[in-house]
Amino acid sequence: MALIVQKYGGTSVGTVERIEAVAEKVINYRNGGNEVVVVVSAMSGETNRLLDLAKAISSRPAPRELDVLLATGEQATIALLSMALEKRGCAARSYTGGQVHIRTDSTHNKARIQDIDGTAIRRDLLAGRVVVVAGFQGVDEQGNITTLGRGGSDTTAVALAAALKADECQIFTDVDGVYTTDPRVVPEARRLERITFEEMLEMASLGSKVLQIRSVEFAGKYNVPLRVLSSFEEGPGTLITYEEEGMEQALISGIAFNRDEAKLTVLGVPDQPGIAHKLLGPIADANIEVDMIVQNVSPDQTATDFTFTVHRNDYDRALEILGQVARELGAREVSGDNKIVKISIVGVGMRSHAGIAATMFETLAREGINIRMISTSEIKISVVVDEKYLELGVRALHEAFDLARA
Amino acid sequence: MALIVQKYGGTSVGTVERIEAVAEKVINYRNGGNEVVVVVSAMSGETNRLLDLAKAISSRPAPRELDVLLATGEQATIALLSMALEKRGCAARSYTGGQVHIRTDSTHNKARIQDIDGTAIRRDLLAGRVVVVAGFQGVDEQGNITTLGRGGSDTTAVALAAALKADECQIFTDVDGVYTTDPRVVPEARRLERITFEEMLEMASLGSKVLQIRSVEFAGKYNVPLRVLSSFEEGPGTLITYEEEGMEQALISGIAFNRDEAKLTVLGVPDQPGIAHKLLGPIADANIEVDMIVQNVSPDQTATDFTFTVHRNDYDRALEILGQVARELGAREVSGDNKIVKISIVGVGMRSHAGIAATMFETLAREGINIRMISTSEIKISVVVDEKYLELGVRALHEAFDLARA
Repeated sequence: MALIVQKYGGTSVGTVERIEAVAEKVINYRNGGNEVVVVVSAMSGETNRLLDLAKAISSRPAPRELDVLLATGEQATIALLSMALEKRGCAARSYTGGQVHIRTDSTHNKARIQDIDGTAIRRDLLAGRVVVVAGFQGVDEQGNITTLGRGGSDTTAVALAAALKADECQIFTDVDGVYTTDPRVVPEARRLERITFEEMLEMASLGSKVLQIRSVEFAGKYNVPLRVLSSFEEGPGTLITYEEEGMEQALISGIAFNRDEAKLTVLGVPDQPGIAHKLLGPIADANIEVDMIVQNVSPDQTATDFTFTVHRNDYDRALEILGQVARELGAREVSGDNKIVKISIVGVGMRSHAGIAATMFETLAREGINIRMISTSEIKISVVVDEKYLELGVRALHEAFDLARA
Repeated sequence: MALIVQKYGGTSVGTVERIEAVAEKVINYRNGGNEVVVVVSAMSGETNRLLDLAKAISSRPAPRELDVLLATGEQATIALLSMALEKRGCAARSYTGGQVHIRTDSTHNKARIQDIDGTAIRRDLLAGRVVVVAGFQGVDEQGNITTLGRGGSDTTAVALAAALKADECQIFTDVDGVYTTDPRVVPEARRLERITFEEMLEMASLGSKVLQIRSVEFAGKYNVPLRVLSSFEEGPGTLITYEEEGMEQALISGIAFNRDEAKLTVLGVPDQPGIAHKLLGPIADANIEVDMIVQNVSPDQTATDFTFTVHRNDYDRALEILGQVARELGAREVSGDNKIVKISIVGVGMRSHAGIAATMFETLAREGINIRMISTSEIKISVVVDEKYLELGVRALHEAFDLARA
C-alpha cells in the first residue's frame, strides 16, 4: 500500500462542483489501494476577497492579523472537501495547519516550515481515513497562525510528504505536466515523462511556472518524488525525481525562455578588484534583482566590459543608477537594450556529453540569430538574443535537439 | 482599572464600516481607563453563506466538518477588527477559540464550554493590548474545532468574563436595553436600568429575545454582571445582576408575552398515579416541547382535567397524538385551541408582596378579558387568554403596575 500526498490548487477547488470532482478523484486513488493525504488551497477568488476586506480597513494591515484572516480560506476548503468525501461514504478528517502542528518560524505572510508532527495523520490513516490538510498555513512556536506566502500550498504538500515519508507527492494543477517547452510557441512540444529536480529548478526559475521553486527545492532536499498532473484530465503527468543510474538520459530535457529581460552594459571600466561590487551594489540597494551577469576583458587589456540583465520593469531605473556609478568609476560608456529575451537549454545530460553548446550556437547561427550574451551552468546554457528571434530560436533548438520525440 | 468583556454580534460587525465603528467604540472604553476583551461574531450573512456552501455539498454535512467551516466566520472578524484597532495605534491581538483553549465537550454544532485558559489573554492585557476573541467556537480535548450553537457568542463572552473575573460583561446588540414590555405593543414601555438574572431568565424564556437564555444562566451561575446595550446608540443599557439588599425594588419588572402558543385539554381522565406521564410521554416522544402544564380536579372527583400548551406549529400533531392516548385511557373528552396567547408578569418583588396576582386578575377582569389558564412561579404569573385580547391585556397590565414610571 502506497502513501500518496496530493495537492489541489485554488482552481481545482474553485467551486462546489469542482470540490465534488476532487472528492471522486481522491476516492479513486483510495480505492486503488493507496493511503491518501490531501492538501488544498483556498477556493480560487477567496484569497482575493479576503485581501480586499483587509485592504478596505488598512493599506498595510497588521501582518499577524492578515495571516489569521487569510488562513480561513484554506480552512473552509478542507471542511467542504471532507464533507464531500464523507457524503460518499469515505471516512475523512480535516486539519488546519495548527491542528497538525505545521510549525513555522514567526515571519508572518512568508513563514518557513520548520517541523511537522505527523502523529495525528498517521493515526487517521491507520484507521482508514483520508486526511485533508489546509495548505499555505502553519503556527509558530507561540501558537500564532502564520502563512507561507506564494505557492505555500505546494510547500505544505511536499513538507507533509517528507514528514510522512510518502511514496509520492502529487501536485494537481491546470496543466497536465512539464513540457519540453511552451506549446504555445512550439506546437510539437512534448510532455516529459520525467525530469530531475535540478532540471526542474532551472526550468522553473527560467519561467516555466508550473511549480513553485521552493517546493521543488524542498522535495529535492528530502528526496520526495514529485509528480505534476492535471486536475481536469486523466494522465500520468510528469515525475520529478533524482537522476537514476543506467537511465537512458536525453541530452536536453527542455527549453525555457524569458521575455521579461533587459540588458545593461558598461564598457571600459578600470579592471580592478571590487569593481563588480561597486557596479552592482547600488543596483541591489535600489531593490533591483539582477539575473545574468557576464564580465569579459576589454580590448585595451587594462579595462573590462561588464554586462548584466534585470527585469524589464526595472530597466529605466537601473540605467539611470548605472550611468551615475559609471561616471564615478571613469567607465568609457554605458549602454542598454530592453528588446532582448533569454533562451536556455536545460539538461543533466550536458554533464556527460560534449558538444551541446556547439550544437546550440550552430543552430542559432544557421537561422541568422545573433547571440548577444552567453552564460552557462552545470546543466544549463542561456543565451540572450534580440526579442524578435524568440520563437524562431526556440523552435530551431527544439528541433535540433529532437525534443518532440520521446 | 476595570476589566470589561464586550461582545459585538453579527449586525454590529456586518460591514467594514461597522467594524471600524466598533474599533472606535472599543478604543473609547480603552481610553476611559478600562482593560478590554472583545468577543465578536461572524459578519452578518457570512454564516449563511458558509451554510449554503455546505448544503450545496450535502443536506446533512458531517458535523465535525461543519464546525471547521463555520468557525472561519468569526476568525475573519477577529482579524479584521484587530487590523482596525492596530491601524488606529491601539495594540491588539486576535485569538481563535482554540488559541485561548476555550475547551468544550465534543458535541459538534452545539458544544458546551467546560474550561477557558486565560493565561495568554491576561499576559496581553498586562502588556496593554486589547484582546479580540472569536465567539461561538472552541476546541474539544482532542483539539477538534467545535461550535456552541445558537447565541454561542454571548456564551463565549460570559464564560470569558467569568474566567477572567471581569468587572462587567457587555453585550452590544441592536436594541438599547431590556424594556418593561415590547414597545411595539405599549409605546410607553420603559428601558429598565437594571433587572435580576432570574427576572431576565423569565423574560427571555417568555419571548423577549434580547439575550440567549444559556448566557444569562451562565452569567447568573458565575455572578458576572451583564449589561445589554446598543451598538448603534450611546446609552447605559440595562444591567443584569443579582438583587441587592436595600435596593428599592419595583413589584413588577416587566410584562412578557408569547403569541406562538396553542392549548390542549383532556377532560375526565381517571385520576390515578402516572397519568401525567401517560399523557405527555407520547407528546415528548414526538419531539414536541410542552410549555405550561395545569392539572385540576374534575367535578366528578374520581377524574381529573389536564391542560397544557405547545408551540402553535406542533398543535395539529399534538392534538392527533392526544386523541389517541385519551381514547386508550378512557378520558371523557379532548379539546384544543390555537387562538390563544400567554401573558406573564415578572418581578422578584412578588416574593415579598402579596396581592399582585389579585391586581393582575382584577385588571384583566375590568377589561372583560376571560382568563383560560393560570400558572405561577416564584417570580412570575402567567395567564392564557384569547389571542384577540393580547394588546389590550398587556397595555392594561403595564398601566396597572405603573411600569412607565421609573
